[in-house]
Amino acid sequence: MLKLFYAAHTCSLATHIVLEEVCAEYSTARIDFAKTQQRSTEYLKVNPKGRVPALVTDRGVLTETPAMLVFVAQLFPAARLAPIDDPFTFAEMQAFNSYLCSTLHIAHAHRMRGHRWVDADDAASIAAMQRKVPQSVGACYDLIEHDMLKRPWVMGERYTICDPYLFTLAQWLEADGVDPKRIPRVIDHRRRVAERAAVRKAIAEELA
Amino acid sequence: MLKLFYAAHTCSLATHIVLEEVCAEYSTARIDFAKTQQRSTEYLKVNPKGRVPALVTDRGVLTETPAMLVFVAQLFPAARLAPIDDPFTFAEMQAFNSYLCSTLHIAHAHRMRGHRWVDADDAASIAAMQRKVPQSVGACYDLIEHDMLKRPWVMGERYTICDPYLFTLAQWLEADGVDPKRIPRVIDHRRRVAERAAVRKAIAEELA
Repeated sequence: MLKLFYAAHTCSLATHIVLEEVCAEYSTARIDFAKTQQRSTEYLKVNPKGRVPALVTDRGVLTETPAMLVFVAQLFPAARLAPIDDPFTFAEMQAFNSYLCSTLHIAHAHRMRGHRWVDADDAASIAAMQRKVPQSVGACYDLIEHDMLKRPWVMGERYTICDPYLFTLAQWLEADGVDPKRIPRVIDHRRRVAERAAVRKAIAEELA
Repeated sequence: MLKLFYAAHTCSLATHIVLEEVCAEYSTARIDFAKTQQRSTEYLKVNPKGRVPALVTDRGVLTETPAMLVFVAQLFPAARLAPIDDPFTFAEMQAFNSYLCSTLHIAHAHRMRGHRWVDADDAASIAAMQRKVPQSVGACYDLIEHDMLKRPWVMGERYTICDPYLFTLAQWLEADGVDPKRIPRVIDHRRRVAERAAVRKAIAEELA
């Protein structure tokens, strides 16, 4: 059986939602960042990166959201969440998720995890990074709004693994200083994803 | 026919190598970063992100290295560069590539592209980012060396799309301030990938 290690208010929600969407049998284990459990000896044996999410499978542990989302979609092909047999459409989907993990999520992370890229005691540089977040995250959302987000779903007519991933990161855009009025398609997408039963169930569990 | 937009000394080399490995018919177009051609009106029509690589296909343009590598591997299944029919092994491969794009490449980018995350005229913060690069990039290579790189290739016995991607980023580790003596497996891997005919051909074209 699958076991998802997650932390509330992190990108692990995307995989949690997809596990619900496909009606997988799985268990969860919550990692408390306030207690830095992600750096505990016990958790580092699961994921030496000291990050979430991690998915324990009967063949080993998987990490990295874009990889995990495709994995779950492949295990449950009937849910049709990833067009793996259509290389071009699959690549478009993968490109979207890759942009989220390597550009949007990274821009966001400079608000709260600046110590990854400057010394932790360099308060001026950490503050400088935080000041840039509204612009850098905003630029990502402008691109998503105008060039990437098809409708009604990210990839067009079909709901895919891109949708819960965008939804998850879009939880943070107001706190990142992005004016929601400037990205109405993204906000409408977020509202519609939030209404899905799988999404409500995953969020309810994480916030319980 | 496929057309790869690339720039020398960037991550586009990974896709270039894979196109050579599968013996694809393709053409190339060089983007000159010194002339900021990646921000030209003409190129932004190809890739609104203003980045390389971009791959023009008969169905549209693809971006993002992890997506493009899988796409080329899928188009040429006889080369067996990605185990798409084995969801767990495919996910491990995708997780490796996702780590490269979202963690290693990003840590490296703080040496030369710090203006993405702080104001361009904030010389002190940009210098602070540059000082952290040996540590942040070094931590990535320590993890790759000890926990991720199987042998002889990244995924073990079979050469996959992970190998040219790691090789490409590993071109930069000395300039990032990482001591190669501390990561002998990574250095040995880089040396062995460099000897492949496809790799030599792609590099020769980019540096011609």
